[in-house]
Amino acid sequence: MLKRRTDLAAEAAQLWQEEAGTTTRLEGVRARDSAREGFRVTTVQILNEEGARALGKPEGTYVTLELDGLLRREEGAFPRAARALATELSGLLELPDGALVLVVGLGNRAITPDRVGPRTAEHIIVTRHLVERSPEHFGSFRPVSALAAGVLGTTGMESGELIAAVVERLRPACVVAVDALASRSVKRVGRTIQLSDTGIVPGSGVGNARKALNRGTLGIPVIAVGVPTVVDAATLACDLLAEAGKGDFEPEALGGAQGLIVTPRDVDAQVEDLAKVIGYGIDLALQPGLTVEDIDLLVS
Amino acid sequence: MLKRRTDLAAEAAQLWQEEAGTTTRLEGVRARDSAREGFRVTTVQILNEEGARALGKPEGTYVTLELDGLLRREEGAFPRAARALATELSGLLELPDGALVLVVGLGNRAITPDRVGPRTAEHIIVTRHLVERSPEHFGSFRPVSALAAGVLGTTGMESGELIAAVVERLRPACVVAVDALASRSVKRVGRTIQLSDTGIVPGSGVGNARKALNRGTLGIPVIAVGVPTVVDAATLACDLLAEAGKGDFEPEALGGAQGLIVTPRDVDAQVEDLAKVIGYGIDLALQPGLTVEDIDLLVS
Amino acid sequence: MLKRRTDLAAEAAQLWQEEAGTTTRLEGVRARDSAREGFRVTTVQILNEEGARALGKPEGTYVTLELDGLLRREEGAFPRAARALATELSGLLELPDGALVLVVGLGNRAITPDRVGPRTAEHIIVTRHLVERSPEHFGSFRPVSALAAGVLGTTGMESGELIAAVVERLRPACVVAVDALASRSVKRVGRTIQLSDTGIVPGSGVGNARKALNRGTLGIPVIAVGVPTVVDAATLACDLLAEAGKGDFEPEALGGAQGLIVTPRDVDAQVEDLAKVIGYGIDLALQPGLTVEDIDLLVS
Amino acid sequence: MLKRRTDLAAEAAQLWQEEAGTTTRLEGVRARDSAREGFRVTTVQILNEEGARALGKPEGTYVTLELDGLLRREEGAFPRAARALATELSGLLELPDGALVLVVGLGNRAITPDRVGPRTAEHIIVTRHLVERSPEHFGSFRPVSALAAGVLGTTGMESGELIAAVVERLRPACVVAVDALASRSVKRVGRTIQLSDTGIVPGSGVGNARKALNRGTLGIPVIAVGVPTVVDAATLACDLLAEAGKGDFEPEALGGAQGLIVTPRDVDAQVEDLAKVIGYGIDLALQPGLTVEDIDLLVS
Repeated sequence: MLKRRTDLAAEAAQLWQEEAGTTTRLEGVRARDSAREGFRVTTVQILNEEGARALGKPEGTYVTLELDGLLRREEGAFPRAARALATELSGLLELPDGALVLVVGLGNRAITPDRVGPRTAEHIIVTRHLVERSPEHFGSFRPVSALAAGVLGTTGMESGELIAAVVERLRPACVVAVDALASRSVKRVGRTIQLSDTGIVPGSGVGNARKALNRGTLGIPVIAVGVPTVVDAATLACDLLAEAGKGDFEPEALGGAQGLIVTPRDVDAQVEDLAKVIGYGIDLALQPGLTVEDIDLLVS
Repeated sequence: MLKRRTDLAAEAAQLWQEEAGTTTRLEGVRARDSAREGFRVTTVQILNEEGARALGKPEGTYVTLELDGLLRREEGAFPRAARALATELSGLLELPDGALVLVVGLGNRAITPDRVGPRTAEHIIVTRHLVERSPEHFGSFRPVSALAAGVLGTTGMESGELIAAVVERLRPACVVAVDALASRSVKRVGRTIQLSDTGIVPGSGVGNARKALNRGTLGIPVIAVGVPTVVDAATLACDLLAEAGKGDFEPEALGGAQGLIVTPRDVDAQVEDLAKVIGYGIDLALQPGLTVEDIDLLVS
Repeated sequence: MLKRRTDLAAEAAQLWQEEAGTTTRLEGVRARDSAREGFRVTTVQILNEEGARALGKPEGTYVTLELDGLLRREEGAFPRAARALATELSGLLELPDGALVLVVGLGNRAITPDRVGPRTAEHIIVTRHLVERSPEHFGSFRPVSALAAGVLGTTGMESGELIAAVVERLRPACVVAVDALASRSVKRVGRTIQLSDTGIVPGSGVGNARKALNRGTLGIPVIAVGVPTVVDAATLACDLLAEAGKGDFEPEALGGAQGLIVTPRDVDAQVEDLAKVIGYGIDLALQPGLTVEDIDLLVS
Repeated sequence: MLKRRTDLAAEAAQLWQEEAGTTTRLEGVRARDSAREGFRVTTVQILNEEGARALGKPEGTYVTLELDGLLRREEGAFPRAARALATELSGLLELPDGALVLVVGLGNRAITPDRVGPRTAEHIIVTRHLVERSPEHFGSFRPVSALAAGVLGTTGMESGELIAAVVERLRPACVVAVDALASRSVKRVGRTIQLSDTGIVPGSGVGNARKALNRGTLGIPVIAVGVPTVVDAATLACDLLAEAGKGDFEPEALGGAQGLIVTPRDVDAQVEDLAKVIGYGIDLALQPGLTVEDIDLLVS
């Protein structure tokens, strides 16, 4: 079992190897690197109980995209990132034609690094009502609904409760849930997106873990789209010291960082950029007939 | 039946009298004026089918507050207005002790005059989760949940569908629904609030009427809090001409105003002020133990 | 002299003709239509005192673009509109190479239809500090500064005072001033942009006219970029009645509309779209080496 | 000379003592604690060259308020904090009756912890134009102007350049400049306000130090109001380890934290609260005739 906590399976696998030593081999886990649209993609499959225990994550597939060019605002980086995300997401979705998908943005609008979920929902092309009302015009679109689930403190409901209520009513074939994550490494923040078919625990990013959203709790597949926007302050302290060769400490040993988060200075802008890329990526995956240019005209 | 449309029962009664002439008496409708905390209050009761047909509104009680001092930002106007709203609202609510109330903010965040509902939801003291989890501390509070229901174009769901789903799940004793209205008279805009026990049709304010929210559709009482933030442009044209003695025209005769709305120049600020007054008024009605100062500390 | 007021020279010329009758010819004014990037362009030149008196506008050149496709969100409409604006703007600018330009966004952030100026400033590629500090990298850029001038009520300064102070300090070769306008016709709102080399009177859009910004007051050329986002309510009333054949009334005769404005229902979104087009158009005019795609990467 | 950097004189004095050891006495610096409206106030006077060198700060008076109750949202904490700030600020201001004051909010609106300056400017009662235009009504008010100076990247001007240009034009008797600071200690963040009569270096909070604003650069007194909203990540790491007894490291030794900031999780809300307290405090100091309730009605 891992001593250190991370929301990213790719990080967990790496940490496990560090702790176990390179000679030991991690059973029940398969990891491979590839490239998509010029971005690095790491796919980690947790195949059985043993692998799940080792990495502290449920069995399933975890895909990590590293969107460095996006952060550097390289030309063409945005459409490439959206297409890469769409392709990897499509690989995790198993959807009958015309089946309804519910996209939920998790997190608290009032906390900048936690806003990525709700902001993503604003970039989703919502079609359920159009497909139902004028199939003659919109029959070629997949029906999609979107929801920013809010947070307990502002609704009095777990986002899981609200989503379960909506799922019961709309009966979608699948939920795509977007949320902020906490990263182990400052280098991941703002440039990594993790997709998985194992569902998600809302609020883990800013440290308010809630009931899980997954096939067990909702009765349908839940594809998670997680993006690290914060690093735990105590974790950061230990990493900085380790990097500087100042020794190896445990975050748990540092109590003084309660209620503090570490973010990039330009987290406000990064959250906007990431929400747009994720929103467009989901749109492209759910409406394969569309291009990035089409989406520019359909949402704003 | 009225020739001209208005969301305000007090206006409807007045228009009916104008059209019918002062000699005729409106059967099945009782109207009375009073004062609350220094503000004018008009209460219209529609008692039967005949009255409902005459005013084009369902049977029930409609209370109109005129908050002139608020708009002029008179000293003390805000707490007086919040208390007046709370008292009138309490008169319409029949709630067992400790029964859950769901407050819903209707309307589109992206359209300024339609934002009053969602912004109100942000001023609601949400307690359901606290009362459930630590009754020892919060047992004296009524459990309250709040929801900004969004709009069809951004969720793919009627707000009525979303609210019905949540009602089914949370089983509240009552829904309080806040929405923008269209006023017949420019003088009402930004300074009038209508309460009624008859429910509400979302979106009537900016002209996208949806399925009604009422006891018939939700199975529980729905108290509507409506606030005029817009005037229909064609209606305005006719009123201006009538006022100026330039004759009497029908709004329907003027086609050129599609998609236009008439608002006060400072509608952005008015919507913020109204949302705060309504939010505080609802808080005071639902949590009678609190004062305006308490709410200042609990919400922001 | 015109009986009716409009900020748009193209409208003024039209109104003059209506009032004078088709047989009379307007001396001292030359008007011509053309097309740019698929959009209709009307150029009105006021050549002398007589023309200025007739149209109630100073001598100079007024270019009106009609961006209908933009509003309908046609594919490619945005880059075409930005390029059309850039070309027409370049025709009015007479700038030595490397001369500093100051772009000012006029208007009140707190009033939606008045926000177009300040929002435009956020889309301007600001280069003055870069060109000064590392000419080796940015020598190919024109130095540009930008400023959202705020309004009297929030600064205690006329925007003209603030701009004059900055002009005195930075000594730019030219000011490009962006502001909201009032339109005579509801059809103009949100789809028309007027460029002129005669300067601008801040705040005319929402009815708080201030000291003029022009060569006389600032000592350098002032290119005005005006966009109608509101219609005066009384004006609207008269137009609606005229259209409906209900007779011809004077807006001045209608007193009841004080403090009211008429806007498109989606003015919030329209203001965002217009600010982006104008910002990109100015960027393209001032930095001819750049493309729309380049600007996407440089501003956000 | 101090090894460690802090913007707060009270922290600097404390650090100096730690480094020098309790036996040594710091010459040229006088520090005293007091209480104001129930909040702790520390006043540090740097009396000469020696003191300035020791603490790495210019000669002058530095007043630190610790607003703990505010953060805990205690009843009455807000008006008490505003009054405490007003009283301490008045002690630093030497203003002839009726002399104009310019309040400037420094910092970048697009970066949450840096937004405290611009947001404060929105709470300032601006009176210059009123006093000038209708002295008969507003003669009892001090003329005040306010300005959010923006940042180099969005204007192409140093905020110092813009402020100097405005000072040259308006000829105020004094500038009050509000900016975010970096704190040495996480405990200071969001609950401390430092006032000083020595001026300010814009942008030190988020690490983009600019030209100083002080009597030397502007020719008039500059009262600085600084509020720590961030902690340097490397500094935090060292502090956490020191607290945990893990040894003593230098922030400079930790390179890995570039571009990262540490903030409270609810920094968005804290910045809003602090901006309001500071704005109200400045209003009370500049308009002694007003109460907190008056300001509620005058600004929003």
